[in-house]
Amino acid sequence: MELYLVLFVAIIAFGYALSKSSWISKLDAGDATMQKIAGYIAEGAISFLKAEYKVLAIFVIVIAIVVGVLAKEEASHWLVAVAFVIGATLSATAGFLGMKIATKSNVRTTQAARFSLAKALNISFSGGLVMGINVVSLGIIGVVGLFLIFSHVDVLFGMEKWPLHKVLEVLIGFSLGAESIALFARVGGGIYTKAADVGADLVGKVEANIPEDDPRNPAVIADNVGDNVGDVAGMGADLFGSYVSTILATMVLGLTVGPMTKQFSGINPAIMLPIFIAAIGLVFSVVGSFFVRISESGSPQRALNTGNFGAVIMTAIASYFLVDFAFDETFTVSGVMYPAIHVFYSIVVGLVVGTAISLVIEYYTGKNYFPVKYIARQSMTGAATNIIAGLSVGMISTAIPVIILVSGIISAFHIAGLYGVAIAASGMMATTGIQLAIDAFGPIADNAGGIAEMSHLPAEVRQRTDVLDTVGNTTAAIGKGFAIASAALTALAMFSAYMNTTHLTAINIANAKVLGGLLIGGMIPFLFSAYAIRAVGNAANEMVEEVRRQFREIAGIMEGTAEADYQKCIQISTNAALRQMVMPGALALLTPVLIGFIFGAESLGGFLAGVLVSGIMMAFFQSNAGGAWDNAKKMFESGVDIKGQLYFKGSDPHKAAVVGDTVGDPFKDTSGPSLNILIKLVSIVAMIIAPLLS
Amino acid sequence: MELYLVLFVAIIAFGYALSKSSWISKLDAGDATMQKIAGYIAEGAISFLKAEYKVLAIFVIVIAIVVGVLAKEEASHWLVAVAFVIGATLSATAGFLGMKIATKSNVRTTQAARFSLAKALNISFSGGLVMGINVVSLGIIGVVGLFLIFSHVDVLFGMEKWPLHKVLEVLIGFSLGAESIALFARVGGGIYTKAADVGADLVGKVEANIPEDDPRNPAVIADNVGDNVGDVAGMGADLFGSYVSTILATMVLGLTVGPMTKQFSGINPAIMLPIFIAAIGLVFSVVGSFFVRISESGSPQRALNTGNFGAVIMTAIASYFLVDFAFDETFTVSGVMYPAIHVFYSIVVGLVVGTAISLVIEYYTGKNYFPVKYIARQSMTGAATNIIAGLSVGMISTAIPVIILVSGIISAFHIAGLYGVAIAASGMMATTGIQLAIDAFGPIADNAGGIAEMSHLPAEVRQRTDVLDTVGNTTAAIGKGFAIASAALTALAMFSAYMNTTHLTAINIANAKVLGGLLIGGMIPFLFSAYAIRAVGNAANEMVEEVRRQFREIAGIMEGTAEADYQKCIQISTNAALRQMVMPGALALLTPVLIGFIFGAESLGGFLAGVLVSGIMMAFFQSNAGGAWDNAKKMFESGVDIKGQLYFKGSDPHKAAVVGDTVGDPFKDTSGPSLNILIKLVSIVAMIIAPLLS
Repeated sequence: MELYLVLFVAIIAFGYALSKSSWISKLDAGDATMQKIAGYIAEGAISFLKAEYKVLAIFVIVIAIVVGVLAKEEASHWLVAVAFVIGATLSATAGFLGMKIATKSNVRTTQAARFSLAKALNISFSGGLVMGINVVSLGIIGVVGLFLIFSHVDVLFGMEKWPLHKVLEVLIGFSLGAESIALFARVGGGIYTKAADVGADLVGKVEANIPEDDPRNPAVIADNVGDNVGDVAGMGADLFGSYVSTILATMVLGLTVGPMTKQFSGINPAIMLPIFIAAIGLVFSVVGSFFVRISESGSPQRALNTGNFGAVIMTAIASYFLVDFAFDETFTVSGVMYPAIHVFYSIVVGLVVGTAISLVIEYYTGKNYFPVKYIARQSMTGAATNIIAGLSVGMISTAIPVIILVSGIISAFHIAGLYGVAIAASGMMATTGIQLAIDAFGPIADNAGGIAEMSHLPAEVRQRTDVLDTVGNTTAAIGKGFAIASAALTALAMFSAYMNTTHLTAINIANAKVLGGLLIGGMIPFLFSAYAIRAVGNAANEMVEEVRRQFREIAGIMEGTAEADYQKCIQISTNAALRQMVMPGALALLTPVLIGFIFGAESLGGFLAGVLVSGIMMAFFQSNAGGAWDNAKKMFESGVDIKGQLYFKGSDPHKAAVVGDTVGDPFKDTSGPSLNILIKLVSIVAMIIAPLLS
Repeated sequence: MELYLVLFVAIIAFGYALSKSSWISKLDAGDATMQKIAGYIAEGAISFLKAEYKVLAIFVIVIAIVVGVLAKEEASHWLVAVAFVIGATLSATAGFLGMKIATKSNVRTTQAARFSLAKALNISFSGGLVMGINVVSLGIIGVVGLFLIFSHVDVLFGMEKWPLHKVLEVLIGFSLGAESIALFARVGGGIYTKAADVGADLVGKVEANIPEDDPRNPAVIADNVGDNVGDVAGMGADLFGSYVSTILATMVLGLTVGPMTKQFSGINPAIMLPIFIAAIGLVFSVVGSFFVRISESGSPQRALNTGNFGAVIMTAIASYFLVDFAFDETFTVSGVMYPAIHVFYSIVVGLVVGTAISLVIEYYTGKNYFPVKYIARQSMTGAATNIIAGLSVGMISTAIPVIILVSGIISAFHIAGLYGVAIAASGMMATTGIQLAIDAFGPIADNAGGIAEMSHLPAEVRQRTDVLDTVGNTTAAIGKGFAIASAALTALAMFSAYMNTTHLTAINIANAKVLGGLLIGGMIPFLFSAYAIRAVGNAANEMVEEVRRQFREIAGIMEGTAEADYQKCIQISTNAALRQMVMPGALALLTPVLIGFIFGAESLGGFLAGVLVSGIMMAFFQSNAGGAWDNAKKMFESGVDIKGQLYFKGSDPHKAAVVGDTVGDPFKDTSGPSLNILIKLVSIVAMIIAPLLS
């Protein structure tokens, strides 16, 4: 009964997103030039996604067959393949819908920015919101829908009724589908966008001395397409995966909670709780979005913060009553008793950890603090010292977030065992709807600025979109903090769920095979990152040569009398992304299988821990170093004070800072964010093969 | 009885090194200019070491008091503080003696190179050999001497006789002293040398367009001093620490081996074996050194390889007979029975793993293979793509070495349990004597070249020293492979010894506190590296400004009519090194103590595993990336073919490659090699505090 209510809420929300989407579509898309450029971008994005999805369709079919055939009757079922396909399809759909609305919102934001900052914010944020609501409501519909179907295989398919743990284990297929697509989308999108970005910058800004988003640069359309396929579609699939994985992992750990007097649809409230939290978070994400309104002179940052933190606080308060209503006064996890209020505390721990890590990341990557200023100043002595400074900031920035994360894990564990850790992750992911809206708003505003530049609109338009873009950079950093923290907690929950499924009571590091697994696991994020950033480096190289060739061979391109061949650059990015996303993806999917079958379940546990440890460090290191380099470069726009002298764009220190930013690009937008998915995906693969190992 | 024989062998070897040293001192040190420059270098090196040792003396006294006071009577003893002080003193002595002979050999090598390559090789290698024999014989004298003393506290001090495990636990203090000094020496020396190197290159090569080692560059003496305090003294202390730690950890694990019929000095042969292996390795290192001879047209590389592999093979063969003689036909480890020959197999595993990893590292960092060529080619599109390429090569290069290492660990464990893993490490370290000779030969040759350049000797002299220098770079890479692999195995042996001492039978990752320890441990190598490379970046920055100032303010410096103020640059490097070696050192020493006392022994076990996992990855990543960047830059000396066109020194791609090399400098010579010590040191600290935790 309650599940149908949740399903209903999700469907209503999905409808709301659709209506909001059609409202955006009907807005004024500006003059013919703007529409032409926006058309190029939208076309490029859609054609890339189509090409990407074609490749992924083959992958999905192959894996579905393998998974379906290998599924053992006693612990799993071939329906796990169906769950996998549905998860993959919904993830792709979420990415596609997000990209669709983003490529509509961008030009309409530009048009609105000709008249008003408030309107421009409204449109770009609404575009993000459509995507956020889509992702979340599709996630809930998928999980709850499949849960209902798998709980009623007796009624629906005339099979024997499945015990609850089997329902959940088959349901993990959904997670596998979602996260696999997420990984490919993130890596592929990340390679696409950074190949274009790095290529465009290296020739455009550094060699030809033309500004960013200049239409004479042949890579400029590919660069703007990249924002949509990487930052929007990639991120949408990423968070869709995190969202459903967290819910499912928490449900699996709910199995370790002892029976209570209350039940929902005949099921222990501990298992239902993550679904309820998700529904509440969805509702308050929509409510929070109404707070994102500014007057013409208002601060977009404050408006977004109000919406975001409003949603978080309302969700927290509501979850207090939810826990109070759903749980008995006390409950047990693996036999240890805890008071119900502890579940609420766990949610709070999750929210505090996510927020605290975001603040720390803001410190390491924000323009107003020591680290970024330090990198900017170290540019004085050239690119080498800038790079060394950025690398050291990135490495140092792992320390406090990890300490916060560990404190969170130990507290949540102390409060309510492994179930508490999982619930903390669920709490953190509850407001994904508005979180994603704020995240996606950034690339939309970025694109809007690009369109303004390429359409030669008056400077004040670009100024307005720049205000939004700058806010977008800050919110992106906050979003990244949440993403890494939640990935870590989700991976941890999955890891616990894996142990629960394999009936391992301990994973002993002193066992040579476990230690071997740990070391190999620790190596995987390095290898994975290497493939991802090398792909960007290679493709950027190709892009640079193509742009140089066009500058050389197309007469009149620099005078603006001949149009650049944008299509050629789009092709380079597309090919690179499709070809080079395969290796990292294969690495994530195959290594856990190999380790599991060769060395057994306990060694695989060590492997997962290894991936988790070095994956988290590398994610923080790369994301933060990249963010800090980016902002250090941006600081030169308003001048950097080095030993009493001001340096601006075009100065030697600025050129050094551009090198740093370019190195940081694949760090922060290709390998860094993909690592979040990697650490979850290996655990999910382990969960799927777990029944075959014991 | 046998122990006195070993002691006797070590003392004879030490005497041999002294006589060799006085032979070198008596050789011709060249003309007045050469002697003046060599004098500057020797003076700078000695004054740095004196300053460094003054700081370290305070540290040693403080820690000795803390360790002595905290030592619990039942498991340890205040004599652990004495062992600590002796370990620290011998480590410092090893570094000092090595530096002394290196600063004598360098100029004499230059002088010899005026006439003959063969003689130059002989002198530079002899200098290295003196150092290698010093380190090894001091190590054996220290370990065996203290072992004898602690085994006879009843006779010597009238105390109650200590059980064997207590003797070994107190002896771990020796390791603590050795490795602490090693860490500070490596970090301090690494900061010193790279601050000078980076600073000298950034202004000299890139801005002022003067060649390396040009006497007009004010940082040039500091740079050459750096080679001695970093690559020679630092490495000497490092390998001294590894050497004694491996022996001691193996002895501790020998406690898990069941009693045999044979005994030596009333002690189980399993416990004595690492000492015997060390003695054999010392003897064959000296024997191997006699093979390092070339004719005037011979290949120095082949001569060194013959010496090195000759020593390795002779040691392996001898250890077969040793095991056969010392062990019963079968033996048990923690109750599991193995045939004696398995111990010999373990030694072989260690040698194979070390050699295999070295070959892989040679592939990733050598000029003749794809990775370095790839980095050189990616320099075509600028510094950013060069850096991205180097980072990706470094990250990828973790994969195969880790797989080899894990295969080695699992095989050795399979062959003879944890004792087998420790014996593999002992086997790998056995030939440290000649290994270190070959390692130290590199910086001596490098220095010799610098002196030739600065003394304006004819080009053929520099050509001869360059031949040796190039060989030195290759052997350095091989040495690094051995160093990381042996550090990993030693850390593992220490880790097992820690579990043995704390009576932990399992370290369970599923326990939140262990996982927390694992994550924090995984973060430490990042934080540690960040401090180290940031120190280099900051000091290099200061150095750059000082050099720029001198170029600006000292009239006639560029024309060579006025002498640069070398002392000022030496001062900058010295201050930076002394000030900034403190934080990383404190990190290594204090975090295990904090984790242990706050979260307990099992959590500390997780911490050690975390440091091990990410420490190994970061060590491979940084050392190899740095080595590859260095050689990619060097490739431009003979021209790099990029798309059919040849690029040489001074071209744009070469400038981009110089940036990469500069970024790689602190990676490969400051943080990278220090990580080896870090992963051992945390385990040793854990061992020392273990009795207080249970």
